[in-house]
Amino acid sequence: MNFASDNWAGAAPEIIDAITRANDGPAPAYGGDELTRRVEARFCEIFERDCKVYFVATGGAANGLALSVMTPPYGMIVCHEESHIQMDECAGPEFFTGGAKLLPVAGPAGKLTPQAVTKALKGFPERPPHGAPASVLSLTQATECGAVYSADELKALCDTAHQAGLKVHLDGARFANAVAATGASPAALSCDAGIEVLCVGGTKNGCLAAEAIVFFDPDQAQDFEFRRKRAGHLWSKMRFIAAQFDAYLKDGLWLRLATHANARARELSLGLSTIDGVEVSYPTEINEVFVTFPDGAAEKLKEQGAEFYPWVTPGDPAAGRMNRLITSFRTSAEDVQQFLSCVKGVC
Amino acid sequence: MNFASDNWAGAAPEIIDAITRANDGPAPAYGGDELTRRVEARFCEIFERDCKVYFVATGGAANGLALSVMTPPYGMIVCHEESHIQMDECAGPEFFTGGAKLLPVAGPAGKLTPQAVTKALKGFPERPPHGAPASVLSLTQATECGAVYSADELKALCDTAHQAGLKVHLDGARFANAVAATGASPAALSCDAGIEVLCVGGTKNGCLAAEAIVFFDPDQAQDFEFRRKRAGHLWSKMRFIAAQFDAYLKDGLWLRLATHANARARELSLGLSTIDGVEVSYPTEINEVFVTFPDGAAEKLKEQGAEFYPWVTPGDPAAGRMNRLITSFRTSAEDVQQFLSCVKGVC
Amino acid sequence: MNFASDNWAGAAPEIIDAITRANDGPAPAYGGDELTRRVEARFCEIFERDCKVYFVATGGAANGLALSVMTPPYGMIVCHEESHIQMDECAGPEFFTGGAKLLPVAGPAGKLTPQAVTKALKGFPERPPHGAPASVLSLTQATECGAVYSADELKALCDTAHQAGLKVHLDGARFANAVAATGASPAALSCDAGIEVLCVGGTKNGCLAAEAIVFFDPDQAQDFEFRRKRAGHLWSKMRFIAAQFDAYLKDGLWLRLATHANARARELSLGLSTIDGVEVSYPTEINEVFVTFPDGAAEKLKEQGAEFYPWVTPGDPAAGRMNRLITSFRTSAEDVQQFLSCVKGVC
Amino acid sequence: MNFASDNWAGAAPEIIDAITRANDGPAPAYGGDELTRRVEARFCEIFERDCKVYFVATGGAANGLALSVMTPPYGMIVCHEESHIQMDECAGPEFFTGGAKLLPVAGPAGKLTPQAVTKALKGFPERPPHGAPASVLSLTQATECGAVYSADELKALCDTAHQAGLKVHLDGARFANAVAATGASPAALSCDAGIEVLCVGGTKNGCLAAEAIVFFDPDQAQDFEFRRKRAGHLWSKMRFIAAQFDAYLKDGLWLRLATHANARARELSLGLSTIDGVEVSYPTEINEVFVTFPDGAAEKLKEQGAEFYPWVTPGDPAAGRMNRLITSFRTSAEDVQQFLSCVKGVC
Repeated sequence: MNFASDNWAGAAPEIIDAITRANDGPAPAYGGDELTRRVEARFCEIFERDCKVYFVATGGAANGLALSVMTPPYGMIVCHEESHIQMDECAGPEFFTGGAKLLPVAGPAGKLTPQAVTKALKGFPERPPHGAPASVLSLTQATECGAVYSADELKALCDTAHQAGLKVHLDGARFANAVAATGASPAALSCDAGIEVLCVGGTKNGCLAAEAIVFFDPDQAQDFEFRRKRAGHLWSKMRFIAAQFDAYLKDGLWLRLATHANARARELSLGLSTIDGVEVSYPTEINEVFVTFPDGAAEKLKEQGAEFYPWVTPGDPAAGRMNRLITSFRTSAEDVQQFLSCVKGVC
Repeated sequence: MNFASDNWAGAAPEIIDAITRANDGPAPAYGGDELTRRVEARFCEIFERDCKVYFVATGGAANGLALSVMTPPYGMIVCHEESHIQMDECAGPEFFTGGAKLLPVAGPAGKLTPQAVTKALKGFPERPPHGAPASVLSLTQATECGAVYSADELKALCDTAHQAGLKVHLDGARFANAVAATGASPAALSCDAGIEVLCVGGTKNGCLAAEAIVFFDPDQAQDFEFRRKRAGHLWSKMRFIAAQFDAYLKDGLWLRLATHANARARELSLGLSTIDGVEVSYPTEINEVFVTFPDGAAEKLKEQGAEFYPWVTPGDPAAGRMNRLITSFRTSAEDVQQFLSCVKGVC
Repeated sequence: MNFASDNWAGAAPEIIDAITRANDGPAPAYGGDELTRRVEARFCEIFERDCKVYFVATGGAANGLALSVMTPPYGMIVCHEESHIQMDECAGPEFFTGGAKLLPVAGPAGKLTPQAVTKALKGFPERPPHGAPASVLSLTQATECGAVYSADELKALCDTAHQAGLKVHLDGARFANAVAATGASPAALSCDAGIEVLCVGGTKNGCLAAEAIVFFDPDQAQDFEFRRKRAGHLWSKMRFIAAQFDAYLKDGLWLRLATHANARARELSLGLSTIDGVEVSYPTEINEVFVTFPDGAAEKLKEQGAEFYPWVTPGDPAAGRMNRLITSFRTSAEDVQQFLSCVKGVC
Repeated sequence: MNFASDNWAGAAPEIIDAITRANDGPAPAYGGDELTRRVEARFCEIFERDCKVYFVATGGAANGLALSVMTPPYGMIVCHEESHIQMDECAGPEFFTGGAKLLPVAGPAGKLTPQAVTKALKGFPERPPHGAPASVLSLTQATECGAVYSADELKALCDTAHQAGLKVHLDGARFANAVAATGASPAALSCDAGIEVLCVGGTKNGCLAAEAIVFFDPDQAQDFEFRRKRAGHLWSKMRFIAAQFDAYLKDGLWLRLATHANARARELSLGLSTIDGVEVSYPTEINEVFVTFPDGAAEKLKEQGAEFYPWVTPGDPAAGRMNRLITSFRTSAEDVQQFLSCVKGVC
């Protein structure tokens, strides 16, 4: 009954196998190897265009490095107030960018709207050189509250940003879940909508430690190589990240894993929504379920071995009462049913 | 009819005279001179305790350097969403601190309340090492919207901050105006209330370029000297800032200048509030008047030679329609009357 | 005939096996798992004291993060002019520390001496706040030129540093090779000599991506957790670094791998030194051989399939003519003999 | 007998007068005033081309901000090992640039040569992304040891730098002294030789606090405005720096002041060189004399009221025995003669 995080799930067997197979004789270090080249090319296929692709081991590094290329150090990044870059990276974006400002904006289920972005920008107008100039809009797909932007929603947000002179960054820590949930193409949910830079997560969806930064306009990748190196994020044995992505993107593994996790979350959400006193907070679109239990129930569930964390929403008067349940490629239908039985028992 | 900013006013003659007098033979550089020592001691008298005092030339430097000593580079500074450090320093606090995060919080007339601070902190809970740990509460006295915190209000905010483990920084760019407005002692409006570090502005109130950073607990000044130097804010001819403060604090000049400016703003505010179609937005407590004119009136006033700027409030649907009028030690009663006549003429 | 780098060698089978075994059901993320706890404790045994231990994936991250805890952002790090932190991390230490200065110092075979350190400090005297205050002495064990500091040499350097108020950082990217080469205990070559913080490398010696930062005084670890997180170096699936070190430190694997590599380098060095026109530059103490070939020979060797890189020594008039040959756990005696035959053939 | 520093001298009366005169009614803040515009244009005349010019109050700010525009944060600045940016700015360049590396290079009397620069670059070769890429050559005119580069010497250095892909920064804290000493035009000693960015000092030569950053290619000024603002170096009452430069550059005041100081140094140097046991170390080309006294003499001179500081040369075995004597616009011929008498008395 582990719904603590998709990070707890370990790695998919196919990923471990790929790492084992990649350990075959000497290979050039620092990404000069053939496998890395090949997997970079695979990303270009998936996104149906010529991209520049870079690998790192964590999502925080992917976001921070991407943003550091997209904004000057005195620029401003508009983001959701519940976004990972705002809430969960210990001021990492500020560190990587050399001091850029984050402007948190509210919105339902972790989603921003063109209206909210426009209002935020109007409330922080360009007055060079006094205010930090807005340089980047950062979105998360799927959001930290488990919502998915449609291609049209993304496009409208990108249009708003571009008209205001901002580039758009997409934190895709759970991009696979969004693609699996919508059936849209990876390109439709990113570059076709106008996204400039996408961070594609592997780690939360069955990789060991693998994140890709994808620059849809290769010219904008600029000095990424230098920034990755000085931040200690250039692996000498890069083939071992490449190998993970090789397996991940092969024969749709990434979407199979995400589809599995999404399905378990849907079952969980449906089950919970039928239990008296239990309130599911957002539509369950990917592998996350946000739920409020009756007083004392969460404690009892944990005593019975369930693992999950509270979820805090800035500005919510009920902050701290909501819980986040996450499923993964490893979550079984039995895990879900067992948990639902426990919930019924304590509510 | 110049109400653009107290920064447009130049320097008070007493300040210029003091600079001239200080130019008397050689003196040790970098603050090693006697005058600097003496003026530092004068600050201790004014605040009725042993302080560490440092001088710089701009308010942005004072705030940034003060905060850089108060927070670790991965810490979080809670501030008002309209505060100067958030809106007007081009991400300077992020730069000086090496990447600390600013958390903007709303509140009426630029003021924060213990409730708003508590709610903001509850919405960004400590989850080491994931969220940036809240380290500093930054307040402005008087606020950017011309409001003054009472000693009791400050104390309640400091108590809230201290209980949550934060230190409190006070941006006193218009501290003189607040002291003059309330008649409270400088200590009552800062250290006695629990403020740890105060930036005392001189520049907006008749100095040429003079700001003081006052550490009420000398032990907390730590490495300020090194930080000021590496940021290029240690003057070699420091006596010329000290001389400004020497004159400023002598025989109550600072309060006389502020009292004058405050009085002109009050006249202006009273006059404006009696004119049909003109709306004064906040209580006029210091030398700033926030006013909305009927459509087209602002343009006409500017054609007639009036100088003032629009004021933007984040989140305000009327953003951009409000104007800020600032008076200074140089504003005369005639300036005010002339402007009021013009307003009557165009409204 | 691959002598390009120990980074080309891939991972030892025992390391891959450990990763596979660690992938066993859910486990708390971010280092909250039992395996991580256990391996941290193993480091304490190895170094015979209570330590604080942190894991990251690259040597650049280990060095940068360690230094960021040891120096203020305006401090100065004294290091060898050929050190990895100076030459090979793309200004990473400057980035991680928020702008600390590196003072490069010369010395034979990558080694510093107390005399050289004293002279360097005398040439950059404390003049607060004008000069950056020296805060850290950084050494590499074994050095970038393949030399090993004896316990006594390290102790003398630490004494010199401590007397001048500096802490001592040890870059141990090839620490295993140094321990294997000398037979000294890990503690003798680090904490017993006075080192405050040691970065223990695993990656160059058979791990996939595993580096440990060891604080010998737990109190000095201070805010490492926050710094690692904001730099994107906290793995969510930390158990997969812990698993590598678990295998690495078990039954002396780390020393067996290093002993093997060292032995191959010694054979290579001995063989080369007997060939006319070939000059071996430094004593071969670990798994690195520095060699100058007759004109044109390097090119011919590469045509025959040999892999190695030129080595540049700052200030050396022959810069660019010297080559560095590195052996690894994977290098066989046959590889060495084959290469020696080729060298004989072309010289 | 004050030879401590030109920073001790206070300001020239013409400068104070100009500040007083500039305090005339309201004027737009932040450099939007007419005087600032006019003085910027004056710089273009002096350097015989269209420049972008910015004012700040300290030399450390001028250097740091200029360099921050010239180098990426992971770049490398080649400089003299005795340069002010290396020795005297408390790691300011590292701070302003967001972590660029300084590579210190030796050379006689604070001067670099094309040979030394070439050797340094060869010793730190481009190996992207491993080594920090060399981006800027920083020179000082006149040097920290009182030497002046001829136009030809500067040109040769700029050619060397440009061929290697570096831009050239000139720290002109004592640029006036160099121009006065050589009789060359300001352009000949900077832009005509190939310098991209020049920091023109006023403070050491009679200004109160005034430094100008001059971009000879306006396109390269890029984002200077934003960087100056966020670092707290944009004065609100900018006219008071402009006024200083207005007077400074009017009717050759800057060169008269420098010529005076240079002449006193020459008299001092000549006098000292005839005294037994006194050794003058470098040619005296500007207003600085470097001198070694017999044992105990310096102490006796200080007892008699002379003020001067020791000078430390990195790598000099006699480090700490040399003294630096500085003259200023305020030093009289009598001051010099009185000091020479004292020296004769104690030697």
